[in-house]
Amino acid sequence: MTNEIVPDIVISRLPWYLQTLNQMAKEGLHTVSSTMLAERVGSTAAQIRKDLSYFGGFGKQGTGYSIYTLIDQLQQILNLDRVWRVAIVGAGDLGRALTRYKGFANRGIDIVLIFDNHPNVVGQKIGSITVRHVETMAADIWELGIKIAILTVPGDAAQSLANDLAKAGVKAILNYTPQTLMLPPDVHVQNIDPVLQLQRMMYYLGDDQ
Amino acid sequence: MTNEIVPDIVISRLPWYLQTLNQMAKEGLHTVSSTMLAERVGSTAAQIRKDLSYFGGFGKQGTGYSIYTLIDQLQQILNLDRVWRVAIVGAGDLGRALTRYKGFANRGIDIVLIFDNHPNVVGQKIGSITVRHVETMAADIWELGIKIAILTVPGDAAQSLANDLAKAGVKAILNYTPQTLMLPPDVHVQNIDPVLQLQRMMYYLGDDQ
Repeated sequence: MTNEIVPDIVISRLPWYLQTLNQMAKEGLHTVSSTMLAERVGSTAAQIRKDLSYFGGFGKQGTGYSIYTLIDQLQQILNLDRVWRVAIVGAGDLGRALTRYKGFANRGIDIVLIFDNHPNVVGQKIGSITVRHVETMAADIWELGIKIAILTVPGDAAQSLANDLAKAGVKAILNYTPQTLMLPPDVHVQNIDPVLQLQRMMYYLGDDQ
Repeated sequence: MTNEIVPDIVISRLPWYLQTLNQMAKEGLHTVSSTMLAERVGSTAAQIRKDLSYFGGFGKQGTGYSIYTLIDQLQQILNLDRVWRVAIVGAGDLGRALTRYKGFANRGIDIVLIFDNHPNVVGQKIGSITVRHVETMAADIWELGIKIAILTVPGDAAQSLANDLAKAGVKAILNYTPQTLMLPPDVHVQNIDPVLQLQRMMYYLGDDQ
């Protein structure tokens, strides 16, 4: 691995490559060319070679990449060679859906805590997890050393809870709220507002309706 | 507006700017500098000026942008000066959460159809919408002229349903499944897999645990 700082946009594509490679492995493929991978992810071969080159050379010219080696390397780069424990804040519809989401378990993510402030919800079981009161959130997260949280609360509660999460040691927040979070630079935030994702596609629909 | 083709990465940032500007307007602000906007969205003033320059000049040197004018312009660019009707495919936890999601209504998105294939679910009401059977999906979507769909089905059903959606005239799919969709180039896909969003942050957590 080189010491060059890797642009975040490159990092953002790696999970997508990994996912696609896992799918190819399931299909029984053993090697992949950058062209093949590019077709699957809707990119170009040059882009993929450039992205991967940040982390050293993986493929031999002409023979392509070994899918399993590439999966291994990408998992190491992304720190996916371990299981990350995650807390969900907000046990509404979305928080519940995420707690029960089957796609986490085999991809290195373990939902271990879920919080809410509503008396009817605190103490309820969602799957195997009991909803705890947000009052104990900071202490619980600190105690377990949890670094990753998913925020699924109403927008007006988001910033204050995010501050509490940051103080409790959380370094990565997946933000499902429409609120722009302002946090110290060492806390990474990914916004996953479906409206923003829909809106960027609407740009291309202008002449259709 | 210039005729230059705008990179998709620029388009992807516009909804985020719009959202932040709406928040600023709510706070009672009237003008904003590119530096201020940059701070809020975690970007740089140069980046914001460059992004906006694709669509002509909005601000006067030194005085910043009028927030309301900028909101208006961004809404027009993103075709948000209308309401888009959207179909949800898959009435599981996530499909239900999205159908009930309150953040759509005042941001130009109207969920009008929801489909599932499970006999226990078809016919159920979620909010004000009755779940229909996927058998009639293509016909229903075609009839209503719907261009946007949200896919929240198990991964192994995703590609086949996406093909049906594309044939029924859908041009934009928000893909919540872990499946990479392969579709004609005029169909836009945004993947919103929470695992990918979490994984890209894990890159930065390497030394933390």
